[in-house]
Amino acid sequence: MKKSPRQWRGLFFVSIPFAVVLLPLKMILNAKHLEQWVSSIFQHKGFSETDANTAANVLITADLRGIDSHGVARLSGYLRLIDKGRINPKPNIKIIRETPSTGTIDADAAVGLVSAEYAMKLAIEKANNCGSGWIAIKNSNHFGIAAKHSMMALEHNMIGFSVTNASPLVTPALGAERMLGTNPICVAIPAGQEPAFVLDMATSAASNGKLEIAERTNKSIPEGLLIQKDGTTSTNPAELKNGGMVLTLGSDMDHGSYKGYGLSAVVDILSGVLSGANFGPWVPPFVSFLDPLPNLPGLGIGHFVGAWRIDGFREIDEFKSTMDLWIQRFRQTQPLNAEHPVKIPGDYEREETERRKINGIPLVEKVVEDLVNISKECNIPLPNSL
Amino acid sequence: MKKSPRQWRGLFFVSIPFAVVLLPLKMILNAKHLEQWVSSIFQHKGFSETDANTAANVLITADLRGIDSHGVARLSGYLRLIDKGRINPKPNIKIIRETPSTGTIDADAAVGLVSAEYAMKLAIEKANNCGSGWIAIKNSNHFGIAAKHSMMALEHNMIGFSVTNASPLVTPALGAERMLGTNPICVAIPAGQEPAFVLDMATSAASNGKLEIAERTNKSIPEGLLIQKDGTTSTNPAELKNGGMVLTLGSDMDHGSYKGYGLSAVVDILSGVLSGANFGPWVPPFVSFLDPLPNLPGLGIGHFVGAWRIDGFREIDEFKSTMDLWIQRFRQTQPLNAEHPVKIPGDYEREETERRKINGIPLVEKVVEDLVNISKECNIPLPNSL
Repeated sequence: MKKSPRQWRGLFFVSIPFAVVLLPLKMILNAKHLEQWVSSIFQHKGFSETDANTAANVLITADLRGIDSHGVARLSGYLRLIDKGRINPKPNIKIIRETPSTGTIDADAAVGLVSAEYAMKLAIEKANNCGSGWIAIKNSNHFGIAAKHSMMALEHNMIGFSVTNASPLVTPALGAERMLGTNPICVAIPAGQEPAFVLDMATSAASNGKLEIAERTNKSIPEGLLIQKDGTTSTNPAELKNGGMVLTLGSDMDHGSYKGYGLSAVVDILSGVLSGANFGPWVPPFVSFLDPLPNLPGLGIGHFVGAWRIDGFREIDEFKSTMDLWIQRFRQTQPLNAEHPVKIPGDYEREETERRKINGIPLVEKVVEDLVNISKECNIPLPNSL
Repeated sequence: MKKSPRQWRGLFFVSIPFAVVLLPLKMILNAKHLEQWVSSIFQHKGFSETDANTAANVLITADLRGIDSHGVARLSGYLRLIDKGRINPKPNIKIIRETPSTGTIDADAAVGLVSAEYAMKLAIEKANNCGSGWIAIKNSNHFGIAAKHSMMALEHNMIGFSVTNASPLVTPALGAERMLGTNPICVAIPAGQEPAFVLDMATSAASNGKLEIAERTNKSIPEGLLIQKDGTTSTNPAELKNGGMVLTLGSDMDHGSYKGYGLSAVVDILSGVLSGANFGPWVPPFVSFLDPLPNLPGLGIGHFVGAWRIDGFREIDEFKSTMDLWIQRFRQTQPLNAEHPVKIPGDYEREETERRKINGIPLVEKVVEDLVNISKECNIPLPNSL
């Protein structure tokens, strides 16, 4: 329901003095303080202290890594799903099937931030016992930042793998219908002296987060990222709210959009079909104001995580020094433009983490407003801005 | 060394009558007959009957699936590498490291067509024993079509996975240097009534095969697939022979080329670094006239294959009927253009296989010429054209 200009003007006059008096428009918060606050909010909503800490840590990890779309910006969304009964704050997560190196868990409607950590721990335990471990998760909710889950493997000298399906927003190649989520793939690989290699990517041409930021800042986007409801291309990120669709990685058939579609499909099948969760167009929406479709074929959202033990293949020291050589050689790649050297996946996020650990996490107006409202509702004061 | 027009004219007059008398310009061969012939050629070059049959079957599978770049068109290349001593026709493939669900093999310079089958069998055995199996392969050579290897898992009710690194031809995002191969990813997933889902894709914006075909037919290619040696874009596939580079899936930073780079890098690390093979710019060239670089960090080319047992996660029947639903629902995706319905990965190749099993495998002039030369050298007559 669109508001007319007159109504907006009214809101403007009402909200400006309120904002000036009560709301800092932007804030920069210390990561640890923010994490503790987020944990206390989850505890207020019924999470155990352990689960609340886990969930808070996943969100703050996203904010530290500069993936603002997956950080505290999502907190109000999670809370609304808790209030609606779609996220279970006290889940009884169960292993429902198992072999020495595989298994499936029913997350009992836990938030993915919590169920993915549970699953990844189990995968690591299995990898310790028999070389690799793979866990499918059904009956879960939003995953949070995939990198956090895959990176759990690193300190165990393992390669971590995590994928999840997500609410439909992306059209398969040749299609004009929302059938897939932005379905990320994340692989974290330890190195020796060099920092770990961490690839965390949406299988769509653009992540939802990037499109949201373009919309928020009124910027147009390049062609080849989304199409309108009628299938025509668009450079306006707001079209996503009018029924538009994101394209898969590759953008068009000439540039391999069937590959992005294929990868997204594999993520959907591992996460949804293998686990017994929902998949494709049936994945429940993240937003609380949209109900899941009727007659769902599965339970909740699905994820799939795993770990390979390095020394199940090669001596750890040998692997790590070779991985260092890999990273050093790729950094030396002849650049297209001398000012932009070739990066290793994870570089940007690691550098941003180092910066934000020192300088704090910057929050935009909309997010600050959300957090202030949450703070009031739960009566737990927000930390002060730095 | 380019020939002058005069020299070419000379060749033209000499070769035309020869071709008319001795060479059919194009041929269509029965798949089974061609496969037997290829096997007899490999045996002539010293392969055991079993290995020769395996290698021939991988090549003919590619031809049947319409992936002509990976079929008998490659035979002469393999034979030259055997003659040069770079492919070992009598390899002693060994497991050099093992856990219940992982392992590494030294392929003893076998061709990948053979070592990948060996590794995949081992992965399937491990998956039978403990739910999943993962094998890294070092000291190998060209892999052939990845789909053949992954699809071995299907009849065991497993999901098959295979990747390989390859000779450097692709530049990382932001780079202008050949650092990666077209590094394919293949995932094969069984269904029930529906045919299996088989994704087999290069992680580059275009496969080498596609660019070769464009070059052979003098067609220009879309922008965003390759750049010239100096980093400028090109629509001329022949630039690849002048030091040009293929771009990664995504094509440019705006459209996610760092994602294609990241995926290609993961393939390279699993195949090369984890196994102890070469990686990145050190992967030995496929062509016999180029020698490997000095001071290689590993042994040969590397691959990585694996299998997940479906019933390590979910009842097989349940999985298969759900997979059927996935496939049926995706086929019904609203198409962008009613004449081009959305496909399931593997559809094109399966339909082509059905056609070519009946109609035979069409071979272009250049390939026929190769096969005729091989036939003469080995004194093993080619099957007749259909």
